[in-house]
Amino acid sequence: MSTHRQESDSMGSIAVEASAYWGAQTERSIHHFPIGVARFRWQRPLIHALGVLKRAAASANAELGELDAPLAALIIHAADEVIAGQLDAHFPLVVFQTGSGTQSNMNANEVIANRAIELAGGVMGSKVPVHPNDHVNRGQSSNDTFPTAMHIAVVMELQQRLFPALMQLRDTLAGKATEYAAVVKTGRTHLQDATPITLGQEIGAWVSQLEFGLQTIRATLPGLYDLAIGGTAVGTGLNAHPQFGERAAAYIAALTGQPFRSADDKFFALAAHDGLVNTSAALRTLAGGLLKLANDVRWLASGPRCGIGELRIPENEPGSSIMPGKVNPTQCEALSMVCVQVFGNDAAVAFAGSQGNFQLNVYKPIMLHNVLESIALLADACLAFDQFCARGIAPELARIAEHLDRNLMLVTALNRHIGYDRAAEIAKKAHQEGSTLKAAALALGYVSEAQFAAWMVPLEMTHPSAD
Amino acid sequence: MSTHRQESDSMGSIAVEASAYWGAQTERSIHHFPIGVARFRWQRPLIHALGVLKRAAASANAELGELDAPLAALIIHAADEVIAGQLDAHFPLVVFQTGSGTQSNMNANEVIANRAIELAGGVMGSKVPVHPNDHVNRGQSSNDTFPTAMHIAVVMELQQRLFPALMQLRDTLAGKATEYAAVVKTGRTHLQDATPITLGQEIGAWVSQLEFGLQTIRATLPGLYDLAIGGTAVGTGLNAHPQFGERAAAYIAALTGQPFRSADDKFFALAAHDGLVNTSAALRTLAGGLLKLANDVRWLASGPRCGIGELRIPENEPGSSIMPGKVNPTQCEALSMVCVQVFGNDAAVAFAGSQGNFQLNVYKPIMLHNVLESIALLADACLAFDQFCARGIAPELARIAEHLDRNLMLVTALNRHIGYDRAAEIAKKAHQEGSTLKAAALALGYVSEAQFAAWMVPLEMTHPSAD
Amino acid sequence: MSTHRQESDSMGSIAVEASAYWGAQTERSIHHFPIGVARFRWQRPLIHALGVLKRAAASANAELGELDAPLAALIIHAADEVIAGQLDAHFPLVVFQTGSGTQSNMNANEVIANRAIELAGGVMGSKVPVHPNDHVNRGQSSNDTFPTAMHIAVVMELQQRLFPALMQLRDTLAGKATEYAAVVKTGRTHLQDATPITLGQEIGAWVSQLEFGLQTIRATLPGLYDLAIGGTAVGTGLNAHPQFGERAAAYIAALTGQPFRSADDKFFALAAHDGLVNTSAALRTLAGGLLKLANDVRWLASGPRCGIGELRIPENEPGSSIMPGKVNPTQCEALSMVCVQVFGNDAAVAFAGSQGNFQLNVYKPIMLHNVLESIALLADACLAFDQFCARGIAPELARIAEHLDRNLMLVTALNRHIGYDRAAEIAKKAHQEGSTLKAAALALGYVSEAQFAAWMVPLEMTHPSAD
Amino acid sequence: MSTHRQESDSMGSIAVEASAYWGAQTERSIHHFPIGVARFRWQRPLIHALGVLKRAAASANAELGELDAPLAALIIHAADEVIAGQLDAHFPLVVFQTGSGTQSNMNANEVIANRAIELAGGVMGSKVPVHPNDHVNRGQSSNDTFPTAMHIAVVMELQQRLFPALMQLRDTLAGKATEYAAVVKTGRTHLQDATPITLGQEIGAWVSQLEFGLQTIRATLPGLYDLAIGGTAVGTGLNAHPQFGERAAAYIAALTGQPFRSADDKFFALAAHDGLVNTSAALRTLAGGLLKLANDVRWLASGPRCGIGELRIPENEPGSSIMPGKVNPTQCEALSMVCVQVFGNDAAVAFAGSQGNFQLNVYKPIMLHNVLESIALLADACLAFDQFCARGIAPELARIAEHLDRNLMLVTALNRHIGYDRAAEIAKKAHQEGSTLKAAALALGYVSEAQFAAWMVPLEMTHPSAD
Repeated sequence: MSTHRQESDSMGSIAVEASAYWGAQTERSIHHFPIGVARFRWQRPLIHALGVLKRAAASANAELGELDAPLAALIIHAADEVIAGQLDAHFPLVVFQTGSGTQSNMNANEVIANRAIELAGGVMGSKVPVHPNDHVNRGQSSNDTFPTAMHIAVVMELQQRLFPALMQLRDTLAGKATEYAAVVKTGRTHLQDATPITLGQEIGAWVSQLEFGLQTIRATLPGLYDLAIGGTAVGTGLNAHPQFGERAAAYIAALTGQPFRSADDKFFALAAHDGLVNTSAALRTLAGGLLKLANDVRWLASGPRCGIGELRIPENEPGSSIMPGKVNPTQCEALSMVCVQVFGNDAAVAFAGSQGNFQLNVYKPIMLHNVLESIALLADACLAFDQFCARGIAPELARIAEHLDRNLMLVTALNRHIGYDRAAEIAKKAHQEGSTLKAAALALGYVSEAQFAAWMVPLEMTHPSAD
Repeated sequence: MSTHRQESDSMGSIAVEASAYWGAQTERSIHHFPIGVARFRWQRPLIHALGVLKRAAASANAELGELDAPLAALIIHAADEVIAGQLDAHFPLVVFQTGSGTQSNMNANEVIANRAIELAGGVMGSKVPVHPNDHVNRGQSSNDTFPTAMHIAVVMELQQRLFPALMQLRDTLAGKATEYAAVVKTGRTHLQDATPITLGQEIGAWVSQLEFGLQTIRATLPGLYDLAIGGTAVGTGLNAHPQFGERAAAYIAALTGQPFRSADDKFFALAAHDGLVNTSAALRTLAGGLLKLANDVRWLASGPRCGIGELRIPENEPGSSIMPGKVNPTQCEALSMVCVQVFGNDAAVAFAGSQGNFQLNVYKPIMLHNVLESIALLADACLAFDQFCARGIAPELARIAEHLDRNLMLVTALNRHIGYDRAAEIAKKAHQEGSTLKAAALALGYVSEAQFAAWMVPLEMTHPSAD
Repeated sequence: MSTHRQESDSMGSIAVEASAYWGAQTERSIHHFPIGVARFRWQRPLIHALGVLKRAAASANAELGELDAPLAALIIHAADEVIAGQLDAHFPLVVFQTGSGTQSNMNANEVIANRAIELAGGVMGSKVPVHPNDHVNRGQSSNDTFPTAMHIAVVMELQQRLFPALMQLRDTLAGKATEYAAVVKTGRTHLQDATPITLGQEIGAWVSQLEFGLQTIRATLPGLYDLAIGGTAVGTGLNAHPQFGERAAAYIAALTGQPFRSADDKFFALAAHDGLVNTSAALRTLAGGLLKLANDVRWLASGPRCGIGELRIPENEPGSSIMPGKVNPTQCEALSMVCVQVFGNDAAVAFAGSQGNFQLNVYKPIMLHNVLESIALLADACLAFDQFCARGIAPELARIAEHLDRNLMLVTALNRHIGYDRAAEIAKKAHQEGSTLKAAALALGYVSEAQFAAWMVPLEMTHPSAD
Repeated sequence: MSTHRQESDSMGSIAVEASAYWGAQTERSIHHFPIGVARFRWQRPLIHALGVLKRAAASANAELGELDAPLAALIIHAADEVIAGQLDAHFPLVVFQTGSGTQSNMNANEVIANRAIELAGGVMGSKVPVHPNDHVNRGQSSNDTFPTAMHIAVVMELQQRLFPALMQLRDTLAGKATEYAAVVKTGRTHLQDATPITLGQEIGAWVSQLEFGLQTIRATLPGLYDLAIGGTAVGTGLNAHPQFGERAAAYIAALTGQPFRSADDKFFALAAHDGLVNTSAALRTLAGGLLKLANDVRWLASGPRCGIGELRIPENEPGSSIMPGKVNPTQCEALSMVCVQVFGNDAAVAFAGSQGNFQLNVYKPIMLHNVLESIALLADACLAFDQFCARGIAPELARIAEHLDRNLMLVTALNRHIGYDRAAEIAKKAHQEGSTLKAAALALGYVSEAQFAAWMVPLEMTHPSAD
């Protein structure tokens, strides 16, 4: 008995495994694009987005009289199963395929059509009563559906995956900033000892940077809410009902709870993906901030005895296969590797985004892939870093006090009283003689003991000077 | 007679040319950083910004009682000369110096102090009555002044240089889009013939992309309006009056007409420059759009006889030193080289932006340099491309008509009437036989001659289908 | 009944699934690094390399008297199973972990130790008779083993996967270059019509570029043959026998058939991976060449009727979900997406490679991951492009002839006879009047009909001029 | 009296300043490309290379009978002046121009022609007796001359500027490595205390990395020795004598003392510049190594009292405008900014290198510009870093000793004697109790006092273990 059925498209007939819902074009793509198969299959975010899109399109077409209600109901039923993840196994294609994502659009059309046919009691592959192109793809082209699905997938991943993870890490650090608001410590500029700050201020700067990264990404959302749907093949909307784009976008908005809308200029929406380039760049900005955070934490925790050693971080695992007892800042390292990957991914996205020609950019899949990967990695890494590092950060108070006590840059507090040049003289003398600032200051006769005591208060140096 | 005078700082005394206003620290920087001297001296934008900043700081200090009015007046007078460009020759330093820009901040302090001393009839180098640190740099540190000057310089260059140039090019193209709104031509996707569009739509997509790039850059302005001033050495504001940052920012806003404000978190403002990273990324997005524009124009103008040849562009110069009569799309080439340079500059900015440690990022000068260069190049290239290419773009109507007439993808108009599969059959038959769509359609019997005439109207294919 | 056993390390005891060979440190890593799990598990190349390395280390230690022969035999047996791929399921860790790859080194140590214990009839987890650190990791540290495994993995993937695929594509194209050596066609510079070439020359340039890319990559092999093994924790070789590095490298060379050797400076070999950065850069050079190839092919095949249309490429699948009969250059698109990914991956590698501190670079896993991914994608894409595109490339002779006939740049042949200025005059006249070169030349009186016929021979213009 | 003369080309006549040697095409380029004029004029390296090239071409043409001896002599005389730098003021063009560098090639042709005419007593602009195209550009096209000049310029800058500077820095550090070969200190991995090394070993790793960078760049020289000359417009060599390329290359080799040769495949030599991409990548590898060096130095010199503080570096200038007495690692900062610029420049080069079409890559000028800038910046920065930092590096012996004494990772020496697990137990106990290793080891009873003294010798831990 046959384990395969015949599926057909405009190139002819081809055998497909009987259990698969996909059709001829998906099968051809499997055959022609054996590139990166082990790691580059599309995952949930795109499949979900294609399901949402196809459901919305069917609803819009039905509403506009472009699709009979019974056919629309069948398509919607099948699309709901795609949305729910029940048909993920029937999306076998990889990133490296047609640059318009045509084959993944057809994969969705074929799976939904065959599943709808099955629901209707028809024969899979017959295209009756549901045709993948004429019905599921009604009023659509890969050129407008794929970029629409790209935007849906990215927005949902940002909202549901990255933002919660990032906010969780930000909040953990904000709590630490409050907790350690009174710990005065040595500031550092150029890696050199500088005037004092509080540990709360130091951690607070990380919080501000994460918040800035978050807002940077959020600011790119409007560019993603604009959907190409309705543009069909080249942006003109040929073969779509004049209100199709707008109605489909409204259904997508309703299904996702996100303010998606039909883009003003569909030609631009197909030919370039600058909105996605902006999101990628924003992810890079966040990665830059996270790298700074990871570096600050591991440097402050460096040692334990021959480094800075002002922070303690959790000991999660043995650090070395040869050095017994060693503990390493491994969460910082994993996070920092994620950050450089995001930089690399962004370089690919921006390059790809610049390579459109005429009415189409044919680097859509690789752009989507990289943005989704960056989002997933950043989200995972934020959660791991939060749970296994940030929450356990604690000050090494003795070390902090020892450093502060020795810090020559406290002399800056004297500027306002004796001028920069004399203050410099004191610091240099203390440095050369290995003495304290106080000893040097008194020896030079620039301040009295009482003045020194009154002016040289580290905590008072952590805010602007009131007279 | 001596042509040099002695200047001093905390390291000691050093000879400076008598005619120069700068002091000891500038002189030391000239000596220690002979790197890229021919091409990397700071230019007007930073010098202007330093003048604005120092003037605003003097005004704020005077207002807050931190500086005597006569001293402030002298400083303001000298700073006004810096703003006006009268002292540019006294800013000899290059990008490659201290990573905090300390030496350029001191350059400004020294020049203003010496010029103020001169105005007061004093002896240059004496620091009396105006001291570069205690007075000109009052309540400031390089760590907050240099990033403040960075933001001022970038905002002014965007507003005064890039935006007008970009809008001029956008408007020229918008005019062309209107002018050629009725020219129906072949659309192209995957570089292959696709359904028709109008030339107005094609050019309009460029306009939309430039407008999107402009808005992307504008959206980064708020991140630049936040100024570090008031944070002094490490963000705490030590040695500054509590209201200094806010007052100085207000004076800067007044002097520039831009809504600058004091940043909420000064620690973040010194330790990272993510606002600038965002601006750089936005410039990259614009560059991506301009590269697409340059490529579209040169491909559409390719030929004249063996390419696409649908656009005519101005002939500005002989194209070849060996091929007589050749005309090349040189403005496209210059613009596209600018675009890849902006990509490279942005890579440097993002890398540098990720490398901060603790309370300071010491890649400030290189970040500023690259952003300013990208702005200048994009502005220059937009103006040249506008003047010497865009304004002269005109359709080759005969070629456009010939292409449209031969385009098999017009068959797409039949989808709605006879279905995708039969339409595909017609196109394939015409392609294989080298015949027209009409001949193939009639031969297959899928449409009548009247239907073909009614359905196959290129102009009607440039918008959504109304039933 | 228990489905778990207890495993222990210096942090204490932890439960591990009974069926798993790994131990405590692997288990801790699974727990602490849930980052990118779906896509970033290490695959065959690294696992194979770790097996080779551990086998070689056991052999060397046994030979040097550092390990008893029976223990070495057990380790070698287990390592052979790792090499053969029988234990791949026991390598569950991902790229994002400790930046030294310590956990993957320990994963190998633990799996081999437990498997060896099992072979010896011992109790898994007991570390008796084979201890993961003291025996399997004998004379080693993650800091020298992981970079050693990196080099092994990359060399083997280059030799066994990329080079054959690339050479296959190169050879296909070389065959085409020979086949079409006599097809004279229009050359193109600046996208504009230029003097004639043969199709063989055009394709030959692609062959040369692929060959240059191949040689560029090969030239980085010596940097990869240098192995860190023998350096242990910081490069000093502490705890290793003085001849261990050299002997282990010799065993690795024997096992792989590649001329691996012990690096001269182990400190450099741990602290930086510039050899790998070079390989990554070389892959980028190849990607640049492949992108040029992909672009040339799709532009030459553009049309079919409104583009250049001089090449025919295979029709593998329907091109459009909306435009019936459309065929797109999808193999070019997939290949070009691979190329931009390689650019992005390389950016990550170079960034990571610059971030070492002191005796260690802790971006090892992400560097390895990106280089391996680039190799795999390039190899897959070369094979697919070869099979589904390059082999089917054929000239559209009529189109080529038509273009050549109309090409005004043939006038260049007259330079030597009548000078550049007069030749330019002829070309301009023909261009403006839409006439032929011959008509313009004769009308201007610069050549006789006989001269024109003698000098204007396209085939003669495809090589240097002999007088 | 007229201060201008008329110059003409195939577009017609144009006024040029009487004192300028350039002609019509240069003048048109000045007019049409006002892009980045202040910073992007071509400098000595390209002008010199164009002079060499034109001299060699004239010699070759004369030798081959393609140019009369008197004309050749005039051209050679004028070209010698270009080589010597006497005519630099007559090369006003910028990087952003035709992507083939045509206008700079014509600039050279025009300047040499007019100067030769002047030498012959003719009328500048008359093209008599020396015509810029027919004589100076004889047998050449911009498409082969410009890439030839690119290679000459880059090779000479590498050989004369970068290599000496880099070797000087390398040698300084090698001297330091020898000088401090006996200073035992704490090694650091993951920023954490690790087993001991000598300062000589630490510095030696920097030397190895610089040497590796140097060799990486040297390995790209063969790709630069291949010259495009002889390919003329599209690679065929049309209008050149069959031996012209080979002879011209031989003259270039003789003039420069470098083994330049005529490229095997001229089509590849015009259409892509992968040799230059490789050089750029190699410069990036060096930049990565220099960044690691700069970071290591500034971290080791961090403090002076609250950082690592194991190295002293020269105090060149006051470090802070607000913190008196502060000294910063400014040479490290300048060098590191150069490094990130080189990364950015390389990104532009690789991008540009991938964008060729058919017979020409039209990003030649921007590729050359970035490579030359990277070379110049690296050379300048190596010299400054050598003179003002590296030579003054000295160990802070007290701090080094203090760190070594406290370092818990010395426990690793016990692995071989008591096993990893017990050694770990000792280190953990000492860490938790803040005690010494010795105290913890004896308390646990794993070693005797004599054993501890025998096994725990830091100097013995800086090399492999001999039994």
